[in-house]
Amino acid sequence: VTVVGVGLIGGSLAGALREAGLAGEIIGTGRSAETLRKARDLGLVDRYETRLDRAVKGSQLVVLAAPVGVISALMANLAGCLEPDALLTDTGSVKGDVVAAARRHLGECLPCFVPGHPVAGTERSGPEAAFPELYRGHMVILTPVAETLASATARIRALWTAVGARVIEMSVADHDRILAMTSHLPHMLAYALVDHLVARGDDDRCFDLAAGGFYDFTRIASSDPAMWRDICLHNRAEIASAVRELAGSLERLAGHIEEGDGATLFDMFRRARDARAQVADRRRGRAETRV
Amino acid sequence: VTVVGVGLIGGSLAGALREAGLAGEIIGTGRSAETLRKARDLGLVDRYETRLDRAVKGSQLVVLAAPVGVISALMANLAGCLEPDALLTDTGSVKGDVVAAARRHLGECLPCFVPGHPVAGTERSGPEAAFPELYRGHMVILTPVAETLASATARIRALWTAVGARVIEMSVADHDRILAMTSHLPHMLAYALVDHLVARGDDDRCFDLAAGGFYDFTRIASSDPAMWRDICLHNRAEIASAVRELAGSLERLAGHIEEGDGATLFDMFRRARDARAQVADRRRGRAETRV
Repeated sequence: VTVVGVGLIGGSLAGALREAGLAGEIIGTGRSAETLRKARDLGLVDRYETRLDRAVKGSQLVVLAAPVGVISALMANLAGCLEPDALLTDTGSVKGDVVAAARRHLGECLPCFVPGHPVAGTERSGPEAAFPELYRGHMVILTPVAETLASATARIRALWTAVGARVIEMSVADHDRILAMTSHLPHMLAYALVDHLVARGDDDRCFDLAAGGFYDFTRIASSDPAMWRDICLHNRAEIASAVRELAGSLERLAGHIEEGDGATLFDMFRRARDARAQVADRRRGRAETRV
Repeated sequence: VTVVGVGLIGGSLAGALREAGLAGEIIGTGRSAETLRKARDLGLVDRYETRLDRAVKGSQLVVLAAPVGVISALMANLAGCLEPDALLTDTGSVKGDVVAAARRHLGECLPCFVPGHPVAGTERSGPEAAFPELYRGHMVILTPVAETLASATARIRALWTAVGARVIEMSVADHDRILAMTSHLPHMLAYALVDHLVARGDDDRCFDLAAGGFYDFTRIASSDPAMWRDICLHNRAEIASAVRELAGSLERLAGHIEEGDGATLFDMFRRARDARAQVADRRRGRAETRV
């Protein structure tokens, strides 16, 4: 198995496969020799190669766990050096652009490529942040396309299941739309809120007074800015429209507050609380099922 | 000591005072006899009275820990029955309207009223959610006005310090403006985001896919909807303007995403991450100082 990108996502998967004894040998590769050395020293990979062609030689499975911004370039370089029947998958948070790049570059390897997205992570990054349990109980979304071999999808599904994830399949378009709402939009809000406070907070008291709710709320604003820039650039239409729609909802909310429309405010807050409670119940239900 | 409202905020303060042996007898009062009975059974108060005049008879300190929506009515009823030199304070999340009500109703008791706001809480409510340690290490803001006796402020400061809180003072206007940004605005965002997903989430997958970030982010959307309706109604101008300004920031952000302006996105995300990291550092610093 070759893992391209040995940070939080790739390193954790490598570590989980290694710990479970699911791979003969795990080879890490990526742009920074220092990061690769760390991943090896941490026991996430067996060895590393700085050259992509050497790293994938002999591998039956190649996992692209690099930022979405470089996946297209990686695919262009991979096309010539993958083993004939090697499986290929990725972990990108955006699937439309990744699939477009695969169609452009992978040629006859396209049927062996299974687009994937583990919906897991922390606000930390790098191999030091990786841990083999990261995926346990988390969702992994696979978005196979018309060309994808059913047997390839089945093998990638088995791989994620083996490291404890729950695998679901959906279309590329559904993925990018739903994730824009459930993951990309909250990140945009957290960044916008903190940035807003930085710009308006005329004194330090603003941040000192940021209560627990604010603090939890903006944890995700600690996420890697380059990664999130790339996600924005690769899912532009969906994220821009989600952010714009929410801006419209906030404008309307400001209107209700200004008008002192208590009934509408109460209904909205209650609806939101009830929906949140349902999600919490389902989570608990799932956690118990797992035990 | 009389505590009016024995939910999370009042019940926790009562419990903390009782545990620390700081009050001779703690009397709870409020609208619901059942809630008062629970607070007594949980050991938060020594006894309870359902009538306000009986509850405050003989008390040297009266704490109004009722929702901001009823504080004005409470003050109107209190004016006639407070002991002559009784201290009065409140725990409302909004100070402008509370101070206006105090000026309207308290008459000669006004100098003994110290407006206060403990910046603490969880998304839970009621006496079952109360715990004496709630205020440890949290901020309490006092907003004494021109009429307030310095000795009254000093005594309320000592009270909060004794239960582990860090007390700061600021003007009523600063309080309502800063809290609109640091506490009220995040709550509005969390409610708006969940409500948005409820309205647009065309299938259950939206909520199932809500990742950890979303989940943390929307914890505060579980807060009591009536309380937040009241906070909105009592800090209308500041909250509406904060919500509207953030809507504008989001509109601009959507524009940068649409235009694929990666440099601006990266700058904004990095600025937000750095600011968040500074807040985290300060929090850690404070936590260590406390130990």
